[in-house]
Amino acid sequence: MLILTVTPNLALDITYEVPRLIPGATHRVSRVRQRAGGKGVNVARVLRALGATPVIAGLAGGPTGTAIRAELAEAGFADALTPIAGESRRTVTIVSELDTEPTMCTEPGPAVSLAEWANLRARFAETVARADVVVLSGSLPPGVPEDGYAQLIGTARDLGTRTVLDTSGPALLAGLAARPDVVKPNAAELRAATGIDEEIEAARALARNGTAVVASFGPGGLLAVTDLGTWRARPPRPLAGNPTGAGDACVAALALGVANRASWPNTLVKAVAASAAAVVCPVAGQIDLATYEHLLADVVLEELDAAHPHR
Amino acid sequence: MLILTVTPNLALDITYEVPRLIPGATHRVSRVRQRAGGKGVNVARVLRALGATPVIAGLAGGPTGTAIRAELAEAGFADALTPIAGESRRTVTIVSELDTEPTMCTEPGPAVSLAEWANLRARFAETVARADVVVLSGSLPPGVPEDGYAQLIGTARDLGTRTVLDTSGPALLAGLAARPDVVKPNAAELRAATGIDEEIEAARALARNGTAVVASFGPGGLLAVTDLGTWRARPPRPLAGNPTGAGDACVAALALGVANRASWPNTLVKAVAASAAAVVCPVAGQIDLATYEHLLADVVLEELDAAHPHR
Repeated sequence: MLILTVTPNLALDITYEVPRLIPGATHRVSRVRQRAGGKGVNVARVLRALGATPVIAGLAGGPTGTAIRAELAEAGFADALTPIAGESRRTVTIVSELDTEPTMCTEPGPAVSLAEWANLRARFAETVARADVVVLSGSLPPGVPEDGYAQLIGTARDLGTRTVLDTSGPALLAGLAARPDVVKPNAAELRAATGIDEEIEAARALARNGTAVVASFGPGGLLAVTDLGTWRARPPRPLAGNPTGAGDACVAALALGVANRASWPNTLVKAVAASAAAVVCPVAGQIDLATYEHLLADVVLEELDAAHPHR
Repeated sequence: MLILTVTPNLALDITYEVPRLIPGATHRVSRVRQRAGGKGVNVARVLRALGATPVIAGLAGGPTGTAIRAELAEAGFADALTPIAGESRRTVTIVSELDTEPTMCTEPGPAVSLAEWANLRARFAETVARADVVVLSGSLPPGVPEDGYAQLIGTARDLGTRTVLDTSGPALLAGLAARPDVVKPNAAELRAATGIDEEIEAARALARNGTAVVASFGPGGLLAVTDLGTWRARPPRPLAGNPTGAGDACVAALALGVANRASWPNTLVKAVAASAAAVVCPVAGQIDLATYEHLLADVVLEELDAAHPHR
């Protein structure tokens, strides 16, 4: 099962451990960890944990881009990255035993030229035909056209590969026009994209032209509005932990379901279990497989609208 | 005037501007600046401002080492860096308009192999004969022998090049045994190296075997114990600003004085003026030339011990 994840705004995620973060002070970092990041990279890590073979596409440049490539290679990932002249962005997260919440600084990232974006599109066109599904994740860096995801979704459809889109703002609205197979907004993205507060109504407003909407509500679970039916799926109980990366784990499970042509109920149960199994892990891109397997039997699935055939 | 600065523990200094640093929050960085750092790099920047031609030696590796080299080249510095397999260290400084003091995280830096250190020594031996003076600055990274600076000082002496040493702890004590021409401890380093609280007594204890001791006391100025006399030199008034890098500016002026075979009074006045001209600049490695020129006439110089001849 080959799944192509596209992350235009790749990052190098650096984590510093310090005894305690004190504004205005100098801290000797006791431990440095760094790895490739960005939403699509997290999706790829979860996909691999779930047994699929991800290929990572995106834009990387400068010494930080070199570090991103090196870490992906060391972790054993195949990449189909496109080089850029700018320096890839970093995120720095400062964690300590004495502070409960991590402190994070995220760089804005480099501007991308239209020629570089054209290179990514060309590389994408070469790779996408071999993929069972394509995942498009995260923000578009400055310089990439607002309809960048729409362009890639169009290419994927022409070559017969299905698409899962997870982004926000103008990139989401422009991407929807190209009719991806699945979009996964969270509550805020759903509201911003539709201007509608009521969840089902909002999801239905997005779910046109054959696009399935799977909206995520954190511990409230998922709402899926599809041509085959409408469902809610939620974890049996709230799980304590780090919600960063739960959405990416959800997207990984959705992509696997699409690739496997699984039923929506089956896919939604796995997506809720994967999200919850990410919450119990400290780092985005990880899921706890024991929690995942255990929750598969316990996820609460409810069909809201039996007017359409499903399964 | 060619001056070789050696910085075994080079760094990439990254500065993030954020609206305000709030522990536990996520911050979008509004501006990223990065440049090569480490004490010897700061010395080289000040030397260039003062009209000398510095060459930067040290150890650099990994993508961060590439970024360090790139920034030095972009800034127009000649480098004689030695590659290492490990990843060079970074420092991250978070500044904001609303916080008065910057918040800093410094990485521990890579371990260096003995073969890599031998490579630095070989490169140093090639370069040092062309130099008018050598400046050895900062800590030794893990893996470098404690007497690493002593080895370099010995090579410099064999080739007839004079040396200025600015380090601390065991590296300072081991380096002193090789009889550098000048050492520049600060108050804490002087006390730690000698176990003596009284400043002149402590400086005299270090100033043996022909090594001149120029101890720095922040706004209290400099104390010099040399074969040619003992002096105190201090700024006419305390200057407000950022003391980071003042010691490096002092070392740059000392190195220039040694290279020019200037008198101690002349050199000390310039060293105090350069230190003060660094304090008024926000970034280590910068000096304000107007402040420097202005202070040259105002530095207070006092001879403490006329028992020896001097000029």
